[in-house]
Amino acid sequence: MTSTLFQRVERARRRKHKFTETHITLAHGSGGRAMHELIEGLFLEYFHNPLLDRLEDQAVFDVAAARLAYTTDSYVVSPIFFPGGDIGKLAINGTVNDLAMSGARPLYLSAGFILEEGFPIDDLKKILASMRNAAGESGVKVVTGDTKVVQKGGADQIFINTSGIGVIESSLNLSAASAQPGDKVLLSGTLGDHGTTIMIARGELELETDIESDCAPLQSLVTGMINEAERRDALSGLHCFRDPTRGGVATTLNEIALSSEVCIEIEEGRVPVREEVKGACEILGLDPLYVANEGKLVAIVSADLAEPLVARMRQHPYGVDACIIGEVKIEPGGIVSMHTAFGGTRIVDMLAGEQLPRIC
Amino acid sequence: MTSTLFQRVERARRRKHKFTETHITLAHGSGGRAMHELIEGLFLEYFHNPLLDRLEDQAVFDVAAARLAYTTDSYVVSPIFFPGGDIGKLAINGTVNDLAMSGARPLYLSAGFILEEGFPIDDLKKILASMRNAAGESGVKVVTGDTKVVQKGGADQIFINTSGIGVIESSLNLSAASAQPGDKVLLSGTLGDHGTTIMIARGELELETDIESDCAPLQSLVTGMINEAERRDALSGLHCFRDPTRGGVATTLNEIALSSEVCIEIEEGRVPVREEVKGACEILGLDPLYVANEGKLVAIVSADLAEPLVARMRQHPYGVDACIIGEVKIEPGGIVSMHTAFGGTRIVDMLAGEQLPRIC
Repeated sequence: MTSTLFQRVERARRRKHKFTETHITLAHGSGGRAMHELIEGLFLEYFHNPLLDRLEDQAVFDVAAARLAYTTDSYVVSPIFFPGGDIGKLAINGTVNDLAMSGARPLYLSAGFILEEGFPIDDLKKILASMRNAAGESGVKVVTGDTKVVQKGGADQIFINTSGIGVIESSLNLSAASAQPGDKVLLSGTLGDHGTTIMIARGELELETDIESDCAPLQSLVTGMINEAERRDALSGLHCFRDPTRGGVATTLNEIALSSEVCIEIEEGRVPVREEVKGACEILGLDPLYVANEGKLVAIVSADLAEPLVARMRQHPYGVDACIIGEVKIEPGGIVSMHTAFGGTRIVDMLAGEQLPRIC
Repeated sequence: MTSTLFQRVERARRRKHKFTETHITLAHGSGGRAMHELIEGLFLEYFHNPLLDRLEDQAVFDVAAARLAYTTDSYVVSPIFFPGGDIGKLAINGTVNDLAMSGARPLYLSAGFILEEGFPIDDLKKILASMRNAAGESGVKVVTGDTKVVQKGGADQIFINTSGIGVIESSLNLSAASAQPGDKVLLSGTLGDHGTTIMIARGELELETDIESDCAPLQSLVTGMINEAERRDALSGLHCFRDPTRGGVATTLNEIALSSEVCIEIEEGRVPVREEVKGACEILGLDPLYVANEGKLVAIVSADLAEPLVARMRQHPYGVDACIIGEVKIEPGGIVSMHTAFGGTRIVDMLAGEQLPRIC
């Protein structure tokens, strides 16, 4: 074979291909040329950074001696676009939040895409743009990824898995097992916005509302709370942070009550729920306590920190409706109870059965 | 409400439930009680370790100052059970191998499951057992996870994403961009076993063969090679390790040739392919060079290390058929060429189009 042919092939290979395809094909998951074009022509355009740009099968980076947090979530939300966000924004913020709840500063994310054959590239671009924006807001980088394509009907449009690594820079040791009698229960804002949005976006009920998903990154809100506690030399008063996603606040509080072997008492009248969400939930037969949130946190903190932390949270855009919704009692352990608006008391159990599949 | 009622509820909540359900339901992805029972009654039984057992939304662990490798892959293989493995074994070994190819010792994995409503729990148990065994063989721990359930028809049975973190304990800086003219190309064993197995397992062709997937963890094989190079004070002679999965050895070598701007020449007669695989590939119209492997590695190493490394690899159960299949030349850069068994030379291009979807 002549060296001229080699050179011609070489030149063709080096040409940068603009990614012009309109739909995902099985070839995009083949490992071969089409996949490389998808990754180099599209994914890198949105996520490029020195670690990812190397295009190795793994990212390599240095860490100082540190305590790291590590988490994963798959996102299968339906519909993939909804008021206030999309599956991409959710996939970044959800994992950022799971890191933030340990007090970690999120550093690096992985992203694994499962795409259905025929998925429109324009939709993929919107999702990637959303992921880039969300990652930018939290200062995290997508440093390693994977793309699989399944035949038409083998998956529903697009599923995204993200995992994340963060560094815990304080001496905090937050845990669902650390709630103590006397602690206060803080909530960063209104309940039920995300789940109600998804339910309405499915269009099975013809409701017209202005409700939007609360999908948001909570890392800087948590950082503000940590700073406030540190300023008061009371870091050890922060006991547990959780984001009440699937299963809602009711399920999250039950997890904490069980892990800490305490009773958590909340006041129904103090739990903030938007009027539109309240209305939609009534029509949909949902209890906002069990509806998923994607930009809210529950914090269990010592009583003396509660008011200053709420004041601090309210200065943050994602904490303007922050409030104290209850407190931690010794017994009965493992139970969440609620003083209702009518003056009674009822047990708030963990979500039984399913309320709404594919919420996130 | 009487405290007796509270106490009765409390006792009921504390009882350890044996997980007795037979099929996945949407409730198992709800975030509520059914999901907790699945996680505590099933997942923890297979994966339990101190980091996972905490059941927080993230694993927290200390690391010394270190160079870390981080990777992710989603697994959508069809069929999910095949000769030589299943989707679970693949999900652990695939990610372990992506870490090992950077010279890292794999430490921690995440596991994200997307389950189709109706998926049999017995199949899930088999997959979890396989994952546990594979993780045990490589000394890695699944420390964080996630479960989503999609409605019947929304996904095909089960998809698994794993991500992984490993620590690079040597000064190695392996990269597809580090191949140098004069280097030798090593291959750890026979080509095409995994892809051919999957193709046959789909049952579209009624072939009866003894071919099995080569699915295996390569970390200890790599460690042996690193030790051999260190013993000879020649660590810098190890330039690039890659596992030739989707797209096969042809695609992997093209990636290296392009990244390193070198020409890679291989000898067809030296590339080991099992007779049964060769026969099956002929019937199926596949070229073993493009067929996926799940337990093989390609190594680009300096010439003086090639023979001692092959000798060392052959002592390892996953390297008994190791051999030198070619070498690195200066030009034409970005090209892989092959001297055929008939005395000719041909360009071995990257896989174009798709050969076999859902191979891993």
